[in-house]
Amino acid sequence: MSQKADEFSKERARLNEIVMQYADLGIKRFFSLDGQVYREGVLDTKTKELMGLVASAVLRCDDCIQYHVIESRKAGATDQEFEETMAIGLIVGGSIVIPHLRRAFEMWHELRAADE
Amino acid sequence: MSQKADEFSKERARLNEIVMQYADLGIKRFFSLDGQVYREGVLDTKTKELMGLVASAVLRCDDCIQYHVIESRKAGATDQEFEETMAIGLIVGGSIVIPHLRRAFEMWHELRAADE
Amino acid sequence: MSQKADEFSKERARLNEIVMQYADLGIKRFFSLDGQVYREGVLDTKTKELMGLVASAVLRCDDCIQYHVIESRKAGATDQEFEETMAIGLIVGGSIVIPHLRRAFEMWHELRAADE
Amino acid sequence: MSQKADEFSKERARLNEIVMQYADLGIKRFFSLDGQVYREGVLDTKTKELMGLVASAVLRCDDCIQYHVIESRKAGATDQEFEETMAIGLIVGGSIVIPHLRRAFEMWHELRAADE
Amino acid sequence: MSQKADEFSKERARLNEIVMQYADLGIKRFFSLDGQVYREGVLDTKTKELMGLVASAVLRCDDCIQYHVIESRKAGATDQEFEETMAIGLIVGGSIVIPHLRRAFEMWHELRAADE
Amino acid sequence: MSQKADEFSKERARLNEIVMQYADLGIKRFFSLDGQVYREGVLDTKTKELMGLVASAVLRCDDCIQYHVIESRKAGATDQEFEETMAIGLIVGGSIVIPHLRRAFEMWHELRAADE
Repeated sequence: MSQKADEFSKERARLNEIVMQYADLGIKRFFSLDGQVYREGVLDTKTKELMGLVASAVLRCDDCIQYHVIESRKAGATDQEFEETMAIGLIVGGSIVIPHLRRAFEMWHELRAADE
Repeated sequence: MSQKADEFSKERARLNEIVMQYADLGIKRFFSLDGQVYREGVLDTKTKELMGLVASAVLRCDDCIQYHVIESRKAGATDQEFEETMAIGLIVGGSIVIPHLRRAFEMWHELRAADE
Repeated sequence: MSQKADEFSKERARLNEIVMQYADLGIKRFFSLDGQVYREGVLDTKTKELMGLVASAVLRCDDCIQYHVIESRKAGATDQEFEETMAIGLIVGGSIVIPHLRRAFEMWHELRAADE
Repeated sequence: MSQKADEFSKERARLNEIVMQYADLGIKRFFSLDGQVYREGVLDTKTKELMGLVASAVLRCDDCIQYHVIESRKAGATDQEFEETMAIGLIVGGSIVIPHLRRAFEMWHELRAADE
Repeated sequence: MSQKADEFSKERARLNEIVMQYADLGIKRFFSLDGQVYREGVLDTKTKELMGLVASAVLRCDDCIQYHVIESRKAGATDQEFEETMAIGLIVGGSIVIPHLRRAFEMWHELRAADE
Repeated sequence: MSQKADEFSKERARLNEIVMQYADLGIKRFFSLDGQVYREGVLDTKTKELMGLVASAVLRCDDCIQYHVIESRKAGATDQEFEETMAIGLIVGGSIVIPHLRRAFEMWHELRAADE
């Protein structure tokens, strides 16, 4: 994994630990549900991760986007699949998506470089 | 097609005609781009329509949702593919998506009845 | 209950039934979680419903607002508690909340009239 | 004014009256501020109304859009000024703005017809 | 107060000073209104701050969340009241709230540590 | 230009270059359209940039805001025109706009200082 992706995952884990010190059933169940929904069903994990990516892109949530960029790549998404997904997010969400799209491509670019 | 879907498509066409009486290059190019982005690429049309659906669901745009429900079905999406897509939209977007999810399933249900 | 609230609840139930014909575990668990989170805890139900109301107001979800107006009133919220909650929603969410605030006060007004 | 615009304004006034039966200082001051901000300053009223329109378009608030379409026209906006404003709203906000843009052009079209 | 909260408040004050060099009546009145709406009424300050928190959470505004976390704690909110409020924000707003919820719990955790 | 604005523009250019390594026709056409829509028409560039600013403010996109602050100033917007535009953004979008408004005024303040 790239350094950026690695730092992102560590910070995420550190903060999740704090949340879990306080979280009651509601939050815990939601976190669990959030994991389950991307598991392979009739739609495969790659497609589901790309759907999570497009949803995160139009809602302009950088952390969510970074997470789904990493997971989409892990699930085997290609450059072109990533690009077509981001294009849908851009057209649906408009120019306000652009700053997030830039950071998404940067993460993708780094993950790719780290894989070579 | 179901009556609801038919009325939806007619109203959409009627209003598009008004828009086009006033639209200059910018709006026209955007409309054209909006059509192109869902065309088959490395991702097939069905997957792209389901992505348009999940993006519309989390942004809570009823007209956009209805449109992509109709197009997803035309592109061959099954009950389960539709359900898994809506589940992602619900978890990402939260309970405020529920009223839109209800109307999405109602449209799906009617399209299905009309096909039988 | 007022006629408006009654029709709202019936339509909601009718559509929920359609959703449940298709819903798999993910959607079902979310619906269940959505019910649990407003149950009495260290915060009482009235406070939680007013929180659901302010969240729905700033997200400008009419169906969600109507639902929490009805539930807040059932939970014993007074005119002034309702007003102060809506004022927070208005200041946080801005003038785009106003059309929803209008419909929220209309529902409240009808519920009040029906109770007299 | 067109019939559609007339009905819109009457319904708005009817609901505002209900709000004012309950509203305390906070809501009243906000409503007053909301009126003041579009008054002529270094920017004229037409420009401010078109800004209110573009803000309402990207936030996808139909009532707010209809209101600013009516006020922009009253303030002397031309077809082309209206079109260029909506084009900015469309590019910034993306394809989810389209259903609202359609209804905005329909209102504009009716106001124009009523003026002839 | 914790160091993080202290830095947050200082930066906020520094920037407010810049805004006030340019702000005319409209912005000044809004800032004043924004302060008034959380003052004790029939709802106490703690409840109002928690409402401001839930509204900020679903709108995913980190600065607003941090501010209301600090103010909720000052107003006497307990761990459990904070948790139940965040749970409502999470269910209403969905998984895109999670990155903000993480940072909210981190701030809470630091404020708590600083108080011990 | 101020140092902050200069760094902002360089980072934007660096990331755009990465995007363009992957971008296909859809994204490229959107980027081109996004440039065209602010060009002088019946509305002048200054007015269009201020409209882009108000749209970015209510959508709370910091990068978009910074960009339009820079471009509005380049196009000749005065302190008062900037202030009146931000006031509309604040009233329409509510208190959640405030953190972004603070950073917008900071950028404006630095651009102004750099021009003196």
